[in-house]
Amino acid sequence: MLDKKYLFPEDAVRLIFKHITQRSLSSEIVPIEEAYSRVTAEDIISPEDLPGFNRSTVDGFAVKASDTFGAKESSPAYLKIKADIPMGAIPDFSLSNGEAASIATGGMLPEGADAVVMVEHVNTVSDDLIEVLKAVSPGENVIFLDEDAKKGETIIKAGHRLKPQDIGALAGLGIKDVKVIRKPVISIILTGDEIMPHTEKVTPGKVRDVNSFTLAGLCYENGAIPLKMGIIKDDYNEIKKAVTKAYELSDIVLITGGTSAGTKDLTAKIINEIGLPGVLFHGASIKPGKPIIGGVCNGKPVFGLPGHPVAVYICFELFVKPVINYVFGLTDKNFKKTVKAKMSRSIHSQAGRQDFIRVYLEEHNGEIWATPLLSKSGLIMSLVKAHGIVHIPSELLGILEGEEVFVEIID
Amino acid sequence: MLDKKYLFPEDAVRLIFKHITQRSLSSEIVPIEEAYSRVTAEDIISPEDLPGFNRSTVDGFAVKASDTFGAKESSPAYLKIKADIPMGAIPDFSLSNGEAASIATGGMLPEGADAVVMVEHVNTVSDDLIEVLKAVSPGENVIFLDEDAKKGETIIKAGHRLKPQDIGALAGLGIKDVKVIRKPVISIILTGDEIMPHTEKVTPGKVRDVNSFTLAGLCYENGAIPLKMGIIKDDYNEIKKAVTKAYELSDIVLITGGTSAGTKDLTAKIINEIGLPGVLFHGASIKPGKPIIGGVCNGKPVFGLPGHPVAVYICFELFVKPVINYVFGLTDKNFKKTVKAKMSRSIHSQAGRQDFIRVYLEEHNGEIWATPLLSKSGLIMSLVKAHGIVHIPSELLGILEGEEVFVEIID
Repeated sequence: MLDKKYLFPEDAVRLIFKHITQRSLSSEIVPIEEAYSRVTAEDIISPEDLPGFNRSTVDGFAVKASDTFGAKESSPAYLKIKADIPMGAIPDFSLSNGEAASIATGGMLPEGADAVVMVEHVNTVSDDLIEVLKAVSPGENVIFLDEDAKKGETIIKAGHRLKPQDIGALAGLGIKDVKVIRKPVISIILTGDEIMPHTEKVTPGKVRDVNSFTLAGLCYENGAIPLKMGIIKDDYNEIKKAVTKAYELSDIVLITGGTSAGTKDLTAKIINEIGLPGVLFHGASIKPGKPIIGGVCNGKPVFGLPGHPVAVYICFELFVKPVINYVFGLTDKNFKKTVKAKMSRSIHSQAGRQDFIRVYLEEHNGEIWATPLLSKSGLIMSLVKAHGIVHIPSELLGILEGEEVFVEIID
Repeated sequence: MLDKKYLFPEDAVRLIFKHITQRSLSSEIVPIEEAYSRVTAEDIISPEDLPGFNRSTVDGFAVKASDTFGAKESSPAYLKIKADIPMGAIPDFSLSNGEAASIATGGMLPEGADAVVMVEHVNTVSDDLIEVLKAVSPGENVIFLDEDAKKGETIIKAGHRLKPQDIGALAGLGIKDVKVIRKPVISIILTGDEIMPHTEKVTPGKVRDVNSFTLAGLCYENGAIPLKMGIIKDDYNEIKKAVTKAYELSDIVLITGGTSAGTKDLTAKIINEIGLPGVLFHGASIKPGKPIIGGVCNGKPVFGLPGHPVAVYICFELFVKPVINYVFGLTDKNFKKTVKAKMSRSIHSQAGRQDFIRVYLEEHNGEIWATPLLSKSGLIMSLVKAHGIVHIPSELLGILEGEEVFVEIID
């Protein structure tokens, strides 16, 4: 009804950023073996040149490139084999004009050599003579000293999430430990008299906890540590006690349930009491997830998430994830990975509101079709069945059947 | 030179599949709290109806929808408040025509009610009378009994990698444990006289181990357990001993280095000796990664990966990952997530060969541009700097500047 006074997620998140400190978490030093997916706390500087010598990238013969100029099968260049360079050894000679030395992939070029002819392009004439059947240019099949990384060069920036190949590069440079940002602790408070632990039999009128499991998994996926605070009764004192404790123990507080008309004032009131400035926005122009509450208490983000499982997921992605990345101080550019698909049926949306439609994907004749799962946001199975989410921007009134969309894959 | 006799990755992988057993790994039972990202070993059947009762999805008043037909602000429907339904309680009454009961989100509908009017669409006239300002249709704002999941229904198939919301759904159904596929153990053998541990100072002619760190991270990302077998000298007996041990201890064996002309015959010979059928392909029509060896020894996949860091990464993605997914018995459809970009410069490719170009992405005026990092495949930093990979199919001779490409993001 009153969507116009509500913020869009990107503006709401910016409002939170204004009241918290970027890269606010402390750091710790871990061995590189344990640093996969961790976020760097400082720029990493190359401690040495990589490689530390001119290195062959193929099996063949180290040569002076100029000795091979014009060489072809019909008129090969003839070179004298001066030596064989054993793998991992330092050649104790230098090449003169007209000379070659056999070398394996990874081997060190002798002084005087500036290229390597691949073994496939060589005929061995005798024990000490080869025919080169193809010319090489200077630098061909060679990685020169410091071509990969230069001593003192910044190789990885602060705020980068370390990928397998980054760790490989650190190992290659002899870096044994790396300073990373501590994993943020995210507390999860469930409110609601009707919520029961998943281990218990439900009685009519009750439902089991779904959200703490979804949220814990999303925390793991985003490099955070979930801290489950249990199921709290819809009671001011109980919730206040739980939020106070969560605020002390964690870096970000998530409260689910308690954001609908019935109890929303309770959650908002408590967020306002815990610290300043308190609630920053109450509701956002999105569907699902409209009743979200976002606030900051003395520098710590506190969210009141809706109770519906689908809304919880969407709100985590739109609000909590950017805040996690902000406290991490993540500087990696975030390119949205999508799958191009066509809508299998028209869906309409409300202008002025961003809609997030769960879709199921199917391939027909090489084309991918997205079918909206237009069920109620309280249905957890609709998220289990969905392959991805289609975002309908606020200025559109919907998407027509057959129209092309970019689906953000859930994984 | 001889690309025509080499297989494309998809055909090479199919050849391996013919000689191994799908979902060959044993299973184990784990609590759902530990099942994030694990692969299900069997179909999961809903043990009960979810929800187990008709449930309100909003705060408001449970009604008979027919009592509200035609209601609008100018001519509201008047209903008598029969009762207040406490959260988590079973209503001990049923609604008659003209009656309503106040209900909170998640509350259980009383007998006779088939819809809920949102509190925003109601005026309270007196303690026991409301005006309904907007009609509701039957089922509106209600999740009916078993609408989410029906008892006996397959909710998650075998071979599915469990996402946070899947675990949430299992919790919601009261499922405490889940049977998942054991994580495959992948042994990593490094060969090469020039390779040194990352903890040691390199002497000229030597380089530190990069690949075991990249490969270990890729194993983790794909749900497998890496088993590092150390650095083995380029010696038949030493490599044979290491491969024999790795074959006994692991589900998939990776040998890096030793696939170029100099030592490739050694690796292939040993794979042929360890078990049948042995080497299935030697080389593939790709760049980088051409010298890859793929084989199966008595049902266990064994790969000889090239030694170049970039080639190792590409070969893992193209050959090892599909094999991991196959032994897991993964049935999830794999939709390729990409970022649409324009090439900032032309690159050419060789017909008959699939090229994998590392690219750097930049955004200019809302458009994403991909710049090829056309460095040598031995340069690990080119992979660190790359945001993604552009695949040039074998039938193309290249991509022109300004042409649209779909970049597979590395993350």
